Amino acid sequence: MTTTDGDVHPVIDSAISVGIVEPQTLIFDQSLELACGRSLPGFELVVETYGELNADHSNALLVCHALSGDHHAAGYYPGEQRPGWWDQHIGPGKPIDTNHFYVVSLNNIGGCSGSTGPTSINPDTGQPWGPDFPIVTVSDWVKSQALLADRLGIGCWAAVVGGSLGGMQALQWAIDYPDRVASALIIAAAPKLSAQNIAFNEVARRAIMSDPDFHDGRYAQQAAIPRHGLMLARMVGHITYLSDDMMRQRFGRELREGKVNFGYDVEFQIESYLRHQGETFVDRFDANTYLLMTKALDYFDPADVHGGDLSQTLANVTARFMVVSFTSDWRFSPARSREIVAALHQGRKSVSYAEIDSPDGHDAFLMTDQKYDTCLRSFLEQNQTRGAAA
Amino acid sequence: MTTTDGDVHPVIDSAISVGIVEPQTLIFDQSLELACGRSLPGFELVVETYGELNADHSNALLVCHALSGDHHAAGYYPGEQRPGWWDQHIGPGKPIDTNHFYVVSLNNIGGCSGSTGPTSINPDTGQPWGPDFPIVTVSDWVKSQALLADRLGIGCWAAVVGGSLGGMQALQWAIDYPDRVASALIIAAAPKLSAQNIAFNEVARRAIMSDPDFHDGRYAQQAAIPRHGLMLARMVGHITYLSDDMMRQRFGRELREGKVNFGYDVEFQIESYLRHQGETFVDRFDANTYLLMTKALDYFDPADVHGGDLSQTLANVTARFMVVSFTSDWRFSPARSREIVAALHQGRKSVSYAEIDSPDGHDAFLMTDQKYDTCLRSFLEQNQTRGAAA
Repeated sequence: MTTTDGDVHPVIDSAISVGIVEPQTLIFDQSLELACGRSLPGFELVVETYGELNADHSNALLVCHALSGDHHAAGYYPGEQRPGWWDQHIGPGKPIDTNHFYVVSLNNIGGCSGSTGPTSINPDTGQPWGPDFPIVTVSDWVKSQALLADRLGIGCWAAVVGGSLGGMQALQWAIDYPDRVASALIIAAAPKLSAQNIAFNEVARRAIMSDPDFHDGRYAQQAAIPRHGLMLARMVGHITYLSDDMMRQRFGRELREGKVNFGYDVEFQIESYLRHQGETFVDRFDANTYLLMTKALDYFDPADVHGGDLSQTLANVTARFMVVSFTSDWRFSPARSREIVAALHQGRKSVSYAEIDSPDGHDAFLMTDQKYDTCLRSFLEQNQTRGAAA
Repeated sequence: MTTTDGDVHPVIDSAISVGIVEPQTLIFDQSLELACGRSLPGFELVVETYGELNADHSNALLVCHALSGDHHAAGYYPGEQRPGWWDQHIGPGKPIDTNHFYVVSLNNIGGCSGSTGPTSINPDTGQPWGPDFPIVTVSDWVKSQALLADRLGIGCWAAVVGGSLGGMQALQWAIDYPDRVASALIIAAAPKLSAQNIAFNEVARRAIMSDPDFHDGRYAQQAAIPRHGLMLARMVGHITYLSDDMMRQRFGRELREGKVNFGYDVEFQIESYLRHQGETFVDRFDANTYLLMTKALDYFDPADVHGGDLSQTLANVTARFMVVSFTSDWRFSPARSREIVAALHQGRKSVSYAEIDSPDGHDAFLMTDQKYDTCLRSFLEQNQTRGAAA
């Protein structure tokens, strides 16, 4: 649709879209004790909601975001072309059906999209927190999300849903607040990172921290941005999000100009794609947040308190679970999802498991696929109103 | 063995070691035309040889090195603790048996261990070549190695042997000089890089080139070294050399100090290992050479001239082949080796194939393993004296 101002606006079909959305900022005055031993004197969360909360507050569904995600999961901002990051899955008649669910999506603490994080002002100094912002954990996020649930009058979520790092939050919710989660949908996740996963995160952190524009994390005060480091971090990450097969299908060894030029400029299409991914990421993401998010991933290991026995950690969970993985995901492979399933089975918990045949690697959790769609739909339809008011 | 100067020297068992070795530099005055269209007015190659060339020059075996390798493949330098990079496989009674073979190992053109490369002086300017050194290809290397064979009086190699990028050289030899290679042993290689392989190389190049100490490749003139970039490049590379399983077995999620410290210093053992790998690499390797080697890898695609049909490219090869892969190698997986085997089978060429069960990833080609040992031994014993004099 072209408007009189000449901009092209998307045609929003209200039959399947939540439409134009507006985030809101919720202020929490209470202190939040963190796993690291420090505390935040108070914090803000930027939140979007889609659908209507029903009378007995039993239809609330929490969406948890992954490493580089935010609160804008569905619908459109005025004048913007692209909808939220999970718009394919959230809306009227979609798997996360806003005709039934009251969907809550937030930017996590430590993020850089409006919630309290490294780019916020540290009240003690009047300067941006930067590198002084505490390293938060998945449990810290879940704790802050529980305070959000209190604020919204939600005693028990009908469902907590997330992919990747978001799936880890769904798992942690079921562990930390067993009576506040009726169902948990854990997609493309793992019960903890492997040494290889940590190794890739470490390369990303080194890239950021060795950029001279990083200034020990105080780049904002220097009006600098560690662009090259953050770009490299994103490029490394992006390789692990895509499958080798999908890269082959999409880029192969295609040359941008049809022939090699014996120089170091972009030659292969895959190089061009990766650089573009890196460059656009730098414009929207904060380097200190990236560092902090990778650490939250590395530290996630809920079984550690029980000597590595995940089934013991899950002894008190009461939620119904669904675990979903994708065949070509080598970041968090199906085998890692099956570890979660096995631990739930061992404790005689309710769990269904779907391994979706997909060429799209880890990124498959963000995409649409008929089988994936059917799995989410079937599981969530059975859990539409199992939540409760606070 | 501790000597009177207090240094600990290795005990060299001459029954299984080639002993103390000394590299020699061979000077070639002829011009070398390169695939890029440029030429080198002349060049030097640093070479080591082990064993004795027999009377009819039929027992010569060429070892080709991989990305970060050099000419020092076996034996010891005086006073040094560590032998050459393939010492486990080269020596009297070892799979590459110096009782039978005259083994030739060189540092390739473009390298940084003494052969003509970016750190050499450009005769036109009197300055180090640096970034002006031409990007060389696998075919260029093979051409320079053929001139080396001429110099040594070797008309036909009994065997050309290499792992990874070295295996690509062995394949190219059989294609470019079918009458000068009696047998080719191609280990942990691929007929061309995948988009994912190129992507990892591109990240490594970006890391080096975006380091402010890179100075457009003229860091030597600035008395600088792009340490951080080269370190990152090596760290990324190293992750792809190891298998996920091997990393799990060797490092798991072990913490250096037993607990997390909520900071960005090294915490997990895998981080410590990777940083160490990166740091030691910087002391021995040149950044411009690293760039050039990754490009040689990216460009390698011998089937391209026949529209991607490798069997057509291999139509005129006469060598006996052995192709070896390792189950946990995800850089160049067994499936990639099988592509070479299939193309050889299609052309009714002599080829045997071994897929070695190993947890050590791509690095397995550098290690010893009984089955691997037996494969090399069995193939090479059958090809000990099939070479010929020039």
